[in-house]
Amino acid sequence: MLEALKEEVYKANLSLVEYKLVLFTWGNVSAIDREKGLVVIKPSGVDYATMKPSDMVVLDLDGNKVEGDLNPSSDTPTHLELYRSFPEVGGIAHTHSTFAVGFAQAAKDIIPYGTTHADFAFGAIPCTRDLNGIEIKDEYELNTGKVIVECFEERGIDYNAVPGVLVHSHGPFTWGKNADAAAKNSAILEEVSKMAYLSETLGAKEASKNIQKKHYFRKHGANAYYGQK
Amino acid sequence: MLEALKEEVYKANLSLVEYKLVLFTWGNVSAIDREKGLVVIKPSGVDYATMKPSDMVVLDLDGNKVEGDLNPSSDTPTHLELYRSFPEVGGIAHTHSTFAVGFAQAAKDIIPYGTTHADFAFGAIPCTRDLNGIEIKDEYELNTGKVIVECFEERGIDYNAVPGVLVHSHGPFTWGKNADAAAKNSAILEEVSKMAYLSETLGAKEASKNIQKKHYFRKHGANAYYGQK
Amino acid sequence: MLEALKEEVYKANLSLVEYKLVLFTWGNVSAIDREKGLVVIKPSGVDYATMKPSDMVVLDLDGNKVEGDLNPSSDTPTHLELYRSFPEVGGIAHTHSTFAVGFAQAAKDIIPYGTTHADFAFGAIPCTRDLNGIEIKDEYELNTGKVIVECFEERGIDYNAVPGVLVHSHGPFTWGKNADAAAKNSAILEEVSKMAYLSETLGAKEASKNIQKKHYFRKHGANAYYGQK
Amino acid sequence: MLEALKEEVYKANLSLVEYKLVLFTWGNVSAIDREKGLVVIKPSGVDYATMKPSDMVVLDLDGNKVEGDLNPSSDTPTHLELYRSFPEVGGIAHTHSTFAVGFAQAAKDIIPYGTTHADFAFGAIPCTRDLNGIEIKDEYELNTGKVIVECFEERGIDYNAVPGVLVHSHGPFTWGKNADAAAKNSAILEEVSKMAYLSETLGAKEASKNIQKKHYFRKHGANAYYGQK
Repeated sequence: MLEALKEEVYKANLSLVEYKLVLFTWGNVSAIDREKGLVVIKPSGVDYATMKPSDMVVLDLDGNKVEGDLNPSSDTPTHLELYRSFPEVGGIAHTHSTFAVGFAQAAKDIIPYGTTHADFAFGAIPCTRDLNGIEIKDEYELNTGKVIVECFEERGIDYNAVPGVLVHSHGPFTWGKNADAAAKNSAILEEVSKMAYLSETLGAKEASKNIQKKHYFRKHGANAYYGQK
Repeated sequence: MLEALKEEVYKANLSLVEYKLVLFTWGNVSAIDREKGLVVIKPSGVDYATMKPSDMVVLDLDGNKVEGDLNPSSDTPTHLELYRSFPEVGGIAHTHSTFAVGFAQAAKDIIPYGTTHADFAFGAIPCTRDLNGIEIKDEYELNTGKVIVECFEERGIDYNAVPGVLVHSHGPFTWGKNADAAAKNSAILEEVSKMAYLSETLGAKEASKNIQKKHYFRKHGANAYYGQK
Repeated sequence: MLEALKEEVYKANLSLVEYKLVLFTWGNVSAIDREKGLVVIKPSGVDYATMKPSDMVVLDLDGNKVEGDLNPSSDTPTHLELYRSFPEVGGIAHTHSTFAVGFAQAAKDIIPYGTTHADFAFGAIPCTRDLNGIEIKDEYELNTGKVIVECFEERGIDYNAVPGVLVHSHGPFTWGKNADAAAKNSAILEEVSKMAYLSETLGAKEASKNIQKKHYFRKHGANAYYGQK
Repeated sequence: MLEALKEEVYKANLSLVEYKLVLFTWGNVSAIDREKGLVVIKPSGVDYATMKPSDMVVLDLDGNKVEGDLNPSSDTPTHLELYRSFPEVGGIAHTHSTFAVGFAQAAKDIIPYGTTHADFAFGAIPCTRDLNGIEIKDEYELNTGKVIVECFEERGIDYNAVPGVLVHSHGPFTWGKNADAAAKNSAILEEVSKMAYLSETLGAKEASKNIQKKHYFRKHGANAYYGQK
């Protein structure tokens, strides 16, 4: 079932390697079929070199396995919580890309220092609060998803305008309309993080709100004029 | 029309990928036929892997499309303003290369710390002032060009001796006698920016004016003695 | 003799090149056959491009050469001391990978700033004390091994939970169940070191003990649930 | 004439590209035939992709061209001064490699922070003083060579034990027994510079003299025991 979606998710997982975002098996991408309410995700700890589209695991939104011989990614409950809470998201990617992790470990937001950031997201990429001992002990991966959702709700951030997050002491999750877009957003977040590292160590301040708005809305929304029709 | 120039502009756009200066479709190169007063530029948001020379867009210096099925780069008005104001420029390149953006986001000039810089440019690579709200609201890309020109005029910088600029909160534009030279200058500016980052974080001071002059003029101008005749 | 183990050690040495951990001939990997009490190690200063599996040198645990035409790696006495003192180790790798050396030269532990580190090791990657003049003068490489063992004993670190070390002013040694695992751990340590460099220069603090435990034990030990059975 | 030496010099120049030390035509390698008193060097500003062994230029030690259709590297007088003053040197390389230039622009020596440095050189890689206006005005490249020699003489540094230098505001020169060794030393100096950058920004101190001596002399001189006989 969902063979086309499995192929998409498989390819998006491989694109993480192409974008140089993962070492060994670190990282995973999923996608959702909203009509059927089914999620397709990479299996846990499988070598990218031997992985096949048919190895992708299918689950319902409650985490029940519907198809697949392998264990799904250990981060699956995080993905599911994001699909349940962010209804317009079609694909999710998680990596340990170097510069984004550098900020997540330092528990710092990625400040919008310039237009590369504003082309991608409207406002800072937030870093969540630290999970507490109880949240870590049981259902850790589910609670990771809940802390992401809490971060967006408490800070009033629109997940459609900010397609990614840093999890405290951990690393980035990104999302998009499908698996491919989610993986591409991981590549963009890493590049934006590297630029932010350089700018921050050179003493930069946040870009003006005006230029942030201009760049975000020339690429996104009803009045976008970047690209082709 | 202008098939040879389209081929040149196409190749120079691909060279940005080869020089590792662009992620996805970020970046654009143009060139001008000064006799005909026509500019050839990359289309907006088109994948480098599928782009063809015939996709290049031809415009006059007022921005009227003369040939091409696709929208020109959204940065086209910036290119046109530079061609109108810098009459000896034959090609222009714009990238979001990492270290140059790092400085642009920090709103800092690239100081001439050494001979690699002086081989390329005579004096600092300036960072423009920030655009104000009105300049951003309407004709933003045109105003970006105007702020670049203002920066060179107010600071008395010769655009022939300093073939590039950092736009505040944004990134680099470079130019040269043709599209290829403009793209090469983007690669050099990125390398010079990386060296400047390292030197600045190690506590460097500007190189002596004497050594700056020596290196600039052994490669450029009437008494140059670098290279072959 | 030990042709299969020689092949394994040979391949693990080449993997250091693939992981971009070595320049020229810097680096070496060994493995042990615990039943026979014999160690297989790379020859000293041989070019990776021309090296063959049959060039690997076989020694007993006292350092007597049992087979091989070439000199073993000059770091052999360090490997042997680690095999004698850490009885569950099956393979050892030594590199001069850039970021790990950066910390070793600064005489700093790699602090566990996040989950990438905790997936790999439980607690800091320690940096040994400096060897004194007498330890350096004679049997330097043996004493390097002894100082590593002393570091783990004095600080009460379990070598099974922390599969690597930084030698003061020198660089990393890593180990694992076999040669391949030891080499992979060198790649992971380098990536973790790079992330730690970024986080530390951004002002990070150590990750919570709770999240360190969670990540370490979801991948290692009896209750691990990462990967496939 | 000197066809074998031209081939060696040609290959060593190309190895700078392979080692990722040069952008475009930046960098040059030469070698000397001490018996004939003739130097072979790369031509100035020629593209590495089209350069041939027969393009190499032959000069005597006074700088008179003996063979070759092209202009020699503009840095030739620096090479010649080093060959005249350092009689055991067989090959010389000059690059603008990024991290070595970072230190040269900051006018800082590369401090021996660890064993990777000590395997390569005994003591700091010195950074020369700045050239004054008169030295820059006329015979600049010759004076660059003289300032390097002065630096080694005034600080009592043995050029056989320290096979490279940073020229103030400029970049590295390295040397060795032949062209290949000189180019390899450029690669090592760049890696050592990168490690020094990381260690210095982490607050490192110079490695102990004992460990510096140990590593230098286990690889160099009469009692070396690294590598094969």
